[in-house]
Amino acid sequence: MAVVGVSTRPGPDGRMGGIFLNSLLEQGYHHGHGLYAVNPKMDEVRGVPCYPSVLDCPDPVDHVISQIPSEGLLELVKQCIDKGVRSLHSFTAGLAETGEPHLVAQEREMVQRANAAGMRLIGPNCMGLYVPGVGLGFNPRSPNEPGNVFLLSQSGANAGGIIDGLGRRGLRFSKGVSYGNAADLKSHDFLDYAMHDPQTELVVAYIEGPRNGRAFFDALKQLARVKPTIVLKGGITDDGARAANSHTGSLAGSIDVFDAVCRQAGAMRVRTLEDLLDLAVAMTTDMRYLLGNKVTLVGAGGGFAVLSTDQMAMEGLTVPWLPEATQEQLREIIPIAGTSIRNPVDANFGRDHPMDFSSDTGLTRRVFQSIAAAHSTDLVLTTVGTRWYPGQDHSDEARQQQLSLTAEELSLISREHQVPMALILREARLEDAGDFVHDHGVASFPSIERAARAAAGILEWKRRREGLPDFFSYN
Amino acid sequence: MAVVGVSTRPGPDGRMGGIFLNSLLEQGYHHGHGLYAVNPKMDEVRGVPCYPSVLDCPDPVDHVISQIPSEGLLELVKQCIDKGVRSLHSFTAGLAETGEPHLVAQEREMVQRANAAGMRLIGPNCMGLYVPGVGLGFNPRSPNEPGNVFLLSQSGANAGGIIDGLGRRGLRFSKGVSYGNAADLKSHDFLDYAMHDPQTELVVAYIEGPRNGRAFFDALKQLARVKPTIVLKGGITDDGARAANSHTGSLAGSIDVFDAVCRQAGAMRVRTLEDLLDLAVAMTTDMRYLLGNKVTLVGAGGGFAVLSTDQMAMEGLTVPWLPEATQEQLREIIPIAGTSIRNPVDANFGRDHPMDFSSDTGLTRRVFQSIAAAHSTDLVLTTVGTRWYPGQDHSDEARQQQLSLTAEELSLISREHQVPMALILREARLEDAGDFVHDHGVASFPSIERAARAAAGILEWKRRREGLPDFFSYN
Repeated sequence: MAVVGVSTRPGPDGRMGGIFLNSLLEQGYHHGHGLYAVNPKMDEVRGVPCYPSVLDCPDPVDHVISQIPSEGLLELVKQCIDKGVRSLHSFTAGLAETGEPHLVAQEREMVQRANAAGMRLIGPNCMGLYVPGVGLGFNPRSPNEPGNVFLLSQSGANAGGIIDGLGRRGLRFSKGVSYGNAADLKSHDFLDYAMHDPQTELVVAYIEGPRNGRAFFDALKQLARVKPTIVLKGGITDDGARAANSHTGSLAGSIDVFDAVCRQAGAMRVRTLEDLLDLAVAMTTDMRYLLGNKVTLVGAGGGFAVLSTDQMAMEGLTVPWLPEATQEQLREIIPIAGTSIRNPVDANFGRDHPMDFSSDTGLTRRVFQSIAAAHSTDLVLTTVGTRWYPGQDHSDEARQQQLSLTAEELSLISREHQVPMALILREARLEDAGDFVHDHGVASFPSIERAARAAAGILEWKRRREGLPDFFSYN
Repeated sequence: MAVVGVSTRPGPDGRMGGIFLNSLLEQGYHHGHGLYAVNPKMDEVRGVPCYPSVLDCPDPVDHVISQIPSEGLLELVKQCIDKGVRSLHSFTAGLAETGEPHLVAQEREMVQRANAAGMRLIGPNCMGLYVPGVGLGFNPRSPNEPGNVFLLSQSGANAGGIIDGLGRRGLRFSKGVSYGNAADLKSHDFLDYAMHDPQTELVVAYIEGPRNGRAFFDALKQLARVKPTIVLKGGITDDGARAANSHTGSLAGSIDVFDAVCRQAGAMRVRTLEDLLDLAVAMTTDMRYLLGNKVTLVGAGGGFAVLSTDQMAMEGLTVPWLPEATQEQLREIIPIAGTSIRNPVDANFGRDHPMDFSSDTGLTRRVFQSIAAAHSTDLVLTTVGTRWYPGQDHSDEARQQQLSLTAEELSLISREHQVPMALILREARLEDAGDFVHDHGVASFPSIERAARAAAGILEWKRRREGLPDFFSYN
């Protein structure tokens, strides 16, 4: 696919259209591999020759990314049509979302002209396409290997936040789109696309206000039936709805109606960006196999265990004592255990030797196996293997190795006993290690509270899917 | 004050009683400065000579820290009494919290014997005292300069979490105590102490179950009247209460009663450790001057602004449009502003030049001054100055400098206009920079959601204090 970036101004460091050109170059596009630049004021930018207009490009062009001011957009649409371009993404803001009648009219005219000629518009007022396998993107630092998560977001900032947040935690994307004002292509078009896209196995969406409510809800129902779908709705309060209207010209509509449709469709609705990230992590790891609300906490000692238990209960989960037979097993494995083998479970194996898979005694593994085998355990949440003790190697490498080993061991026990296990890794550590923990199929969360919300989210999703296709099971 | 550490076993690396001795040495104690070790199996540990018993110490002893097994505690109490020790802190667990009748009886007997001789016990089953000015502590990495926050915590893990979490964000402690089973000295004793302690200006408390409810509530009422007090209650759910009982033998009691007492006393009750940290940050910065719920968000663009606005509204805050006159001023300062000058406010000053105090144009300052002067602004929350753009120096030093400058500018404008301003700094950055931002009197939070909860917490606290002394005002 040949791509053109169009800009009338150089960036602050003399680069054209800073972010898009950089991103395309970093993601894999370059001159000679389908990338052209259009800028009447420059001859060349970062090794890519500039042409005065789209029409001057020597080759056929599939997709155009535009950063020109809104006054020039109608002319650009004309040039693109004449060139036979298939899609035009307009980053340019300051159109219908301003509410100014002449700008609303201009946006409408752009769409009419484009559609009449068979061309589709993305945006305006958005970051456009992220297709990591192909090399399209809008952030030079986004992962450029493809994955199975489809992202649609009316907001470029939130699209960036989601790609960055999930990327750090090891998820990869099939396609992403930030579509702003949705003047032509709308949320339901992207939902349809995601449903039919064979690379897509999970869909995450940030929506301010669907342009066509009926079509959106139909598309959501069809999609969520066959692929897990997580929706974050912006503008759910009066103040937020006003902000959404300023942002993308969206009319937010009733959140009760929106919520009811998500429920009927079997889609997940989350309330914060963090919840979206956490639930996406849960849905792409063993945690998606979760079947019940009984949690065993391992490695959470003392007051941390008390607060963690409260957090679980506040999210509708429960932290039941382990069966007497399991406690008996644990007493054998942990000879000096006191009261911490009931649940939450926390213990040393004598002489300041903490529970940790990096010891070669195998005791930690036996503790987890006993717990996983207990009928009172639907989910194990643990901090084991995520802390460093005096006398241990504190280097980054040693820590990574320990976390990797922990994830591997948890994954093996989890699959053996068909009980999901997840790690609690504080935020700063999650940024470094979330990805390879995820590679082992293990979910990690920056706090007990967020793990609890993700677990509750999975269970709620399964409740609302009764009668709908069941995607996930260990077998 | 002379301190003795008592242990019968060397730590994993041959050190005696690992954490306490290390902590005392790091915090400022050493041999020749009042530190003695007791260990019949060793002659010397890290330069500190070991004596076979407390009675063998050549000098008078004020305070003893014990790590010996519970079987030896009654004998140790006797030795301490004979030596004229004033307080004995027992780290040792496995006493009354087990529920075993003979261990419950042993704990009671220790207290009776000690009290009869005028000696007080801290614990057992706890980390004991943290007095940074003096050099007492239980974590080698805790800040060792003194401050104005008093911490009491039934849990050692949560005491550590609070000292660490607030320490990173620039707060310092007058005294701290982890007191576990509270066999002798109880929460109300520590609350009384905090009330009379001239170094203490803010009290944070983690409580599982007060041993003497009436005395606790009386002490809390008296304390909270004159010093801001934040209480985190562990064991507020059925499962959590059971965990608390296993942990410190606490009977959690009714959370409704507890909550009502906090409300009557004018104390703040928080639901999570994070909320405790955030509210403590708010109470030690300009944010404590907050008087109303009208928030202006600055630097939050697009979909992030929409979600942020929702978060504010969900916490009972509001994000009203700025008055027309203020918008007019902003239009003059930001000639290319579109719709982002209403609130949330986000703008570039042309040509990819973001709002940022590090530019020398003064435009960013003028934006904040206009916003602070608006009658619709009770609080400014901003991400300005916390992001790095292409072309900027990305070194750690440059980032620190930029954050420091941002905090300084915000602080000046905040005090000039008597409107608090707070920064949103993502978690990893907060760990590096939260402290010097705090030094400028500026609060920082890792997310909009947490900032919103802290602001709501301050307002709720002020509501329940009607008729009680007013601590905070800009003048």
